[in-house]
Amino acid sequence: MAAVTSKVPHLMTLADLTPQQIQRIVVHSYHLKRISTPWLAPQGRLENGKLSTAKLRMPSQSLFNKSIALLFSKRSTRTRVSAETAATLLGGQAIFLGKDDIQIGVNESVRDSARVIGGMTQGIFARVGAHDEIEELARYSPVPVLNALSSLWHPTQVLADLLTLQERAQLFGSNPKQREDREPKKLQHLEELPPLTIAYVGDCANVLNDMLVTYPRLGHKMRVGAPENAKYRPPTAVWDRVVELGCDKRILMTADPQEAVHGADVVVTDTWISMGQEAEKAERLKDFQGYQVTEKLCKEGGANPNWKFMHCLPRKQEEVDDEVFYGPRSLVFSESDNRKWTIMAVFDLLFGKWDLTGLPGKGKA
Amino acid sequence: MAAVTSKVPHLMTLADLTPQQIQRIVVHSYHLKRISTPWLAPQGRLENGKLSTAKLRMPSQSLFNKSIALLFSKRSTRTRVSAETAATLLGGQAIFLGKDDIQIGVNESVRDSARVIGGMTQGIFARVGAHDEIEELARYSPVPVLNALSSLWHPTQVLADLLTLQERAQLFGSNPKQREDREPKKLQHLEELPPLTIAYVGDCANVLNDMLVTYPRLGHKMRVGAPENAKYRPPTAVWDRVVELGCDKRILMTADPQEAVHGADVVVTDTWISMGQEAEKAERLKDFQGYQVTEKLCKEGGANPNWKFMHCLPRKQEEVDDEVFYGPRSLVFSESDNRKWTIMAVFDLLFGKWDLTGLPGKGKA
Amino acid sequence: MAAVTSKVPHLMTLADLTPQQIQRIVVHSYHLKRISTPWLAPQGRLENGKLSTAKLRMPSQSLFNKSIALLFSKRSTRTRVSAETAATLLGGQAIFLGKDDIQIGVNESVRDSARVIGGMTQGIFARVGAHDEIEELARYSPVPVLNALSSLWHPTQVLADLLTLQERAQLFGSNPKQREDREPKKLQHLEELPPLTIAYVGDCANVLNDMLVTYPRLGHKMRVGAPENAKYRPPTAVWDRVVELGCDKRILMTADPQEAVHGADVVVTDTWISMGQEAEKAERLKDFQGYQVTEKLCKEGGANPNWKFMHCLPRKQEEVDDEVFYGPRSLVFSESDNRKWTIMAVFDLLFGKWDLTGLPGKGKA
Repeated sequence: MAAVTSKVPHLMTLADLTPQQIQRIVVHSYHLKRISTPWLAPQGRLENGKLSTAKLRMPSQSLFNKSIALLFSKRSTRTRVSAETAATLLGGQAIFLGKDDIQIGVNESVRDSARVIGGMTQGIFARVGAHDEIEELARYSPVPVLNALSSLWHPTQVLADLLTLQERAQLFGSNPKQREDREPKKLQHLEELPPLTIAYVGDCANVLNDMLVTYPRLGHKMRVGAPENAKYRPPTAVWDRVVELGCDKRILMTADPQEAVHGADVVVTDTWISMGQEAEKAERLKDFQGYQVTEKLCKEGGANPNWKFMHCLPRKQEEVDDEVFYGPRSLVFSESDNRKWTIMAVFDLLFGKWDLTGLPGKGKA
Repeated sequence: MAAVTSKVPHLMTLADLTPQQIQRIVVHSYHLKRISTPWLAPQGRLENGKLSTAKLRMPSQSLFNKSIALLFSKRSTRTRVSAETAATLLGGQAIFLGKDDIQIGVNESVRDSARVIGGMTQGIFARVGAHDEIEELARYSPVPVLNALSSLWHPTQVLADLLTLQERAQLFGSNPKQREDREPKKLQHLEELPPLTIAYVGDCANVLNDMLVTYPRLGHKMRVGAPENAKYRPPTAVWDRVVELGCDKRILMTADPQEAVHGADVVVTDTWISMGQEAEKAERLKDFQGYQVTEKLCKEGGANPNWKFMHCLPRKQEEVDDEVFYGPRSLVFSESDNRKWTIMAVFDLLFGKWDLTGLPGKGKA
Repeated sequence: MAAVTSKVPHLMTLADLTPQQIQRIVVHSYHLKRISTPWLAPQGRLENGKLSTAKLRMPSQSLFNKSIALLFSKRSTRTRVSAETAATLLGGQAIFLGKDDIQIGVNESVRDSARVIGGMTQGIFARVGAHDEIEELARYSPVPVLNALSSLWHPTQVLADLLTLQERAQLFGSNPKQREDREPKKLQHLEELPPLTIAYVGDCANVLNDMLVTYPRLGHKMRVGAPENAKYRPPTAVWDRVVELGCDKRILMTADPQEAVHGADVVVTDTWISMGQEAEKAERLKDFQGYQVTEKLCKEGGANPNWKFMHCLPRKQEEVDDEVFYGPRSLVFSESDNRKWTIMAVFDLLFGKWDLTGLPGKGKA
């Protein structure tokens, strides 16, 4: 809850924000995407081959002359490339510091590194191991800290998923106007999503955790299918936040993947074997038998016939087959594209303006 | 042939371009070099110590707000630094992703990585291992892919060599006006090269392969000296392109290094032991006995007394001695300087403008 | 002495500069810090929460369109982040090349790498191992080389320390006006420092070496406490410069840490176990018994009761306890913040303007 209690704003999880604040970030992401995209086309022509007559507007330059430190103790292509390209569009630069560049907590205390790096940069985007570590960074950093992925939370992924869903609001609802999964080209503003049923099938991890504290507060139901074993279920630290926010009332937990996808508008999964879990591979493959997302599973489970598929990537074949992953239901590459725009929005609001929450007195004078 | 058959332009080898298209890139490189160089001088003075009165012109800013991914599965100082500095001059940024940052094809399929990274950046400059890999990247990338070096081809090196030779066109021909190897300072435009005899002595590898499909089409003869062993000769995939383009008629292959340099205006070599071949060192040193480029070899072989030396670097002493490498015949550091300007030209045309080929309807509206 | 004898200016150690030249850099650092800091505040508000009415001035853009190569054979967070953020503020970019990116002297001779990298960039900021290596880089580079840290010298650290002390000139002297260690917010110009007694307690290494050739020439006394063992004392190559510059007259060497801190206004230490010395850990812990900087040591030794503490970081607990390190005497985080501003000043003068020394004919036309 650093965003609330300390003078320097931070973002550790979407649980720290109200639904209105979350929605504000998604809308801002969409705005930045719309005005930035024309800059990225081949010079002198539009994507359809006609000359551009549109006047280009510069996106926010709130990072002009500024630098953001990317402290990544693990590889993360999507998050890193999103951050570096987003910083450029905001007029700033990202400085990537991987595990070979800096070993947080090894050669120097986390406290000292936070103070030193925070004294030279205007924001810290950190992918750490244990969640405690990023809390420690936020405690001592003189500049905002944004969680790029921790053992508990993954807020920027869920923001990207939300943007992806809202861009396709017309796919859902009682009378879907458009059945394709393609991103509408001329969308002028984001429509509101109807209440959805979102199924998660697989290993409960950081991405799911941020969904659990977010989707229910936005009016959606969640159905989570994961083996009974405690290590595949949300840890207490997460569930406490879920309950505190009243989200548990709209969450069903089950060990039956078919039950999980029942009535689902969206089916989500993630890898069963994350970095560092390779030793458990055989055990995990056994425990997740029957959890692979396929047409068959969703048909037999009774998903909405129009169900869509999401995955934060990188993907392995165990958790979803090619038919679904590369098929028309799949929104996975829109999700990855939207990583960039949502990270850009958070960089702008948090690092550039210290105004992530939109609260009076928090970000504006 | 991606440049011809697909909507998104790519560049895998100079074999994909016509002689006119190659020449267009070399001229554009020279143009960018001329207008960029004054920016790089110490501020407030020219290189000769007098204040600059020249009006500075900005180079093309076709990468403004854009990012280029450098996917390098192997180290490559020259190519990397060229790319990063060139992107800066074009108003953009390069994002270096080395083998510790991303393992193409290991943690995620090449197809998915191509789509994801291509969805966040405006170009992919890839140094891969097997050539198949970069073809796979190009197949699935939504943005142009440029070959930074593959097992088969090295197009940007040969462009740099061409620029280096053309800047010194007056060194060659029947009545050479200037005998020094220094780059002419006030060259206003590139002169045409007279037909040259270019000798390559050593291990046939990617750099040579792009020479074989290029120099003959520009009117030059090639003489290649390499041991009979098939592994030191161009692979079938390359030779098929050589024949297809009619280049074989102007290429002599021989196992005698003296025969190779006979009549040569330019003598080129490359390391005999590339990255990953260290285990074969003893064998290779034996097989290449007599192939070291020296004054003696070229005199005995009957090279043009005014012969020049080229090498793509990094250099080891086995393949060329110090007298030649650091002597007045050597053009090696001009070649490395020109890596930057030719890569800048290709970045501008391919990534910035999608107009590498200059074909109507290909790049311009 | 490269700065004096060659046409291209370099900086290897502060011993190469006169006291006036050193002071010029410190003042320029302060100037750049003052005009750059407002750019780094959250957009639309000042640090104290009021809207900014100050007109922002751009810092020197002497690196516009330019690139600086960071050749770092060892990790160095502070130096690297300082360099990357400073280059950005000067309108340029830094290209980080770590030990996995380039192995200076391994795959290619230092001479060739210097020429190649210097041919593509506008400056080389190098952290090497043996000092010979950076001298070799400077010998062959066509662009300025700046020592980021070598076995012998660490000039940019001592510049940062000087700025930190001068910003607090009023803390020292016969009638100190202000007792806090906080950096004065509204300092309009740097005051001169009164003559100080600066004690160094610990392992004599590169940071101390640059102090030994600098502080005495600026009017300060140095007292150095280090065990008798030659490996903990300055090497001959350094001491020769110390004597040559007449600095030895104001330096006391002792093996008694209490004697070292006697009368000290400033107490400085550094880690006892640098990178690569982990094997000697037990021996070093034994040899440095009694050298830990504590309130007790300084009280018993008779330091100025108002003594301040400095450390170049990263810090381990052996050499200084928490009470001192995190207490009100500690200037350590101001030192690290000032790394950025002093590196920015040297980048501007050396790389951007080739005018580090301020000598007529050296940098200006």
